[in-house]
Amino acid sequence: MKEQAKNVLYAQAGGVTAVINASAAGVIETVKSHPEVFGKAYAAVNGIKGVLEEDLIDLDDVPQEQIERLKYQPGAAFQACRFDLDPLDHNPGQYRRVLEVFITYEIGYFFYNGGNGSMVTAQKVSDYCREHGHPVTCIGVAKTIDNDLALSHCSPGFGSAAKYLATSFIEATLDILSMHETSTKFFVMEAMGRNVGWLSLAPGLVKDIIPDAPLIVLPAERPFRQEAFLNRVKELIETHGYCVCSVSEGLVNPDGSYVTITGIEHTTEQDYTQLGGVAQTLAHMVSTEIGCKTHCAIPDYLQRSASHMVSQTDWQMAYDAGKASVEAAVNGEHGTLPVVEKISDEPLSWQFKSVDLQEVANLEYQVPEEFICDNSLCVTDAALDYIRPLIQGERTPQFLNGLPQIQPLEFKTIERQLPPFIAHK
Amino acid sequence: MKEQAKNVLYAQAGGVTAVINASAAGVIETVKSHPEVFGKAYAAVNGIKGVLEEDLIDLDDVPQEQIERLKYQPGAAFQACRFDLDPLDHNPGQYRRVLEVFITYEIGYFFYNGGNGSMVTAQKVSDYCREHGHPVTCIGVAKTIDNDLALSHCSPGFGSAAKYLATSFIEATLDILSMHETSTKFFVMEAMGRNVGWLSLAPGLVKDIIPDAPLIVLPAERPFRQEAFLNRVKELIETHGYCVCSVSEGLVNPDGSYVTITGIEHTTEQDYTQLGGVAQTLAHMVSTEIGCKTHCAIPDYLQRSASHMVSQTDWQMAYDAGKASVEAAVNGEHGTLPVVEKISDEPLSWQFKSVDLQEVANLEYQVPEEFICDNSLCVTDAALDYIRPLIQGERTPQFLNGLPQIQPLEFKTIERQLPPFIAHK
Repeated sequence: MKEQAKNVLYAQAGGVTAVINASAAGVIETVKSHPEVFGKAYAAVNGIKGVLEEDLIDLDDVPQEQIERLKYQPGAAFQACRFDLDPLDHNPGQYRRVLEVFITYEIGYFFYNGGNGSMVTAQKVSDYCREHGHPVTCIGVAKTIDNDLALSHCSPGFGSAAKYLATSFIEATLDILSMHETSTKFFVMEAMGRNVGWLSLAPGLVKDIIPDAPLIVLPAERPFRQEAFLNRVKELIETHGYCVCSVSEGLVNPDGSYVTITGIEHTTEQDYTQLGGVAQTLAHMVSTEIGCKTHCAIPDYLQRSASHMVSQTDWQMAYDAGKASVEAAVNGEHGTLPVVEKISDEPLSWQFKSVDLQEVANLEYQVPEEFICDNSLCVTDAALDYIRPLIQGERTPQFLNGLPQIQPLEFKTIERQLPPFIAHK
Repeated sequence: MKEQAKNVLYAQAGGVTAVINASAAGVIETVKSHPEVFGKAYAAVNGIKGVLEEDLIDLDDVPQEQIERLKYQPGAAFQACRFDLDPLDHNPGQYRRVLEVFITYEIGYFFYNGGNGSMVTAQKVSDYCREHGHPVTCIGVAKTIDNDLALSHCSPGFGSAAKYLATSFIEATLDILSMHETSTKFFVMEAMGRNVGWLSLAPGLVKDIIPDAPLIVLPAERPFRQEAFLNRVKELIETHGYCVCSVSEGLVNPDGSYVTITGIEHTTEQDYTQLGGVAQTLAHMVSTEIGCKTHCAIPDYLQRSASHMVSQTDWQMAYDAGKASVEAAVNGEHGTLPVVEKISDEPLSWQFKSVDLQEVANLEYQVPEEFICDNSLCVTDAALDYIRPLIQGERTPQFLNGLPQIQPLEFKTIERQLPPFIAHK
């Protein structure tokens, strides 16, 4: 086994968050602070796909001013792919190619900033390279707005999306409050999160502003019971004059099917069900069954791209996630993912502890029972106590000429050294 | 004809804006500054409905600290009704009641902060009272997010909603930019505005951040041509890799029917078609016809309640609208609506000029031809030059414990003096 190469490769994958670039900055700055360990640093454009296609950026060429701009940039600055390598036995050519790229650029450290699927990819890559005589330390960088990262107190990205949803929902509730007598009596807002309801709980923080808000929360973890839901809507409209509702995009019927889907995408490896629209289903249901005026909001990508509404706590956590991944490598770990371990509650403080990449990839952190009311129609105080610390702190957004100062960052890819990658099976 | 009473009544009606309460503050503070003209000041809760039901607030009892809080409060602080008086010959009882309330509380000035329909109501009320020996000066206070107020350079409320939509769209575009290679290639966001496309133009300001953004704008003024739209989407995806789109909720087919509606509400006086959902229609259309992954966002009420994204220019204009209405009354006008007259461009400056309430109520300010491209699929530079000044300036939102400081204002209604109003025809 040859000596481990010293160069670093960083890449982003999966759904972006409002703070993923803070993690990027955390990785880049921490790598720079350990010249005794690391050589050059590269980023791949478009995740593992960029590795295959040899689309690489020399991070040593990126001036500090751009790293600063990176820190609050929405989207994924190095582009993030929804693309995983095929299983090794289906497509060994992909793995040979990754190895080839890693050898060519003397990559000894691979920091992959993605969700569960990406973690599995990173680990497969690392194993393959090691087996072929080129050891690569692979460390994951934690990230997801969905908050479903197992073994972690919470996920970087969640706090900002939660802050966005809570703020938006509170403002909209004040709108409804002021017009419900003669206008809309039921308002529902849809949160992302696929099969977990964490984001749908965040609007429950409306209770910090309006303690007896007539609120219904429908997280994905509880099967939807139409009659109970409609009865509760009726009840709240009777007692309060209106009803506001937060629903998970992944709400399911008692038989396990999604209440609403956008469509099914068929790919060669698997089918992918696209969610979105359950808010409209519910608004229409209430309008038809109860007969009042309803409105629905589907923020969609807005909840994960809102750099003007970043939670400073979440931002710091995301930065620390990048830093912790690099430090894990410095400490000689490999095949791990540093996750958040809470140290104290008030104020919230944390450290990162490493878990096994494979182990965490197979788990999903669902909303625990005690965070949802017994009637499955609301969020408990315990849940709000959990979320509240994660949304603390704001950074005054930088505007110029009325718009946020978020011009896209431009990075030049370096000249390729290898022939083009021919994707084949 | 007796001498005009001196007390003031202010009320809010129609769809709220993020700055309608700034207008309320403008009215209240300007009334206070003219003790030589005005007596007591009241606000009705829930617009003209509150007048009928004698739900009144004594504004003299409201401390200055609450007036300050009012200035950035989302929703309508005194509640806004979607309710107009019936025609006089259908329901004279309503008019007798309003007169009775105005006499009881010695109301000589009625400032009604609403859209076109409300203006007509206000004028009918004023005429009736005058004809029955109780002169009431009625002045409208301009307001709408739709920007369809005729004879006015723009409408208070529009600039903030435009800022919200532009900012959100830019952030979402950066999200798409960073993921389109392997994920969503078409993103569409829906703007309110019913039959006018003003709000749908605002996301065109993405071009200030990404000059060659692959943008389609579909305002309500241009009939939707599916083939041209799909061809343009295909073309932009080919040249740029993705396409982002802003669409009016009120987009119509060549035959004049709405592309998408939520439903039709039948009331005794008229039918009301509820809009909403055209973004999903387009996302599904592109997904089916072109075969790429699509996403859509429907901000709905979020675009008009986002007090964290108020345009300071719009805020000032809304405050000035309230002030101008009171000053119009001081100057002896009646039956007028002060509207915005632009004085200069850079920087934007304005004054208010009064127009006839009846005249403006019958008109609708549509997006002019020169603001939409000839191909009906985009927004021109002239349109962006018009909108840009209206979104300038930000106020740092006040947060407490991670959430905006917007606890609902509570006003006590005064003890009634009249018997309950029995609504009958």
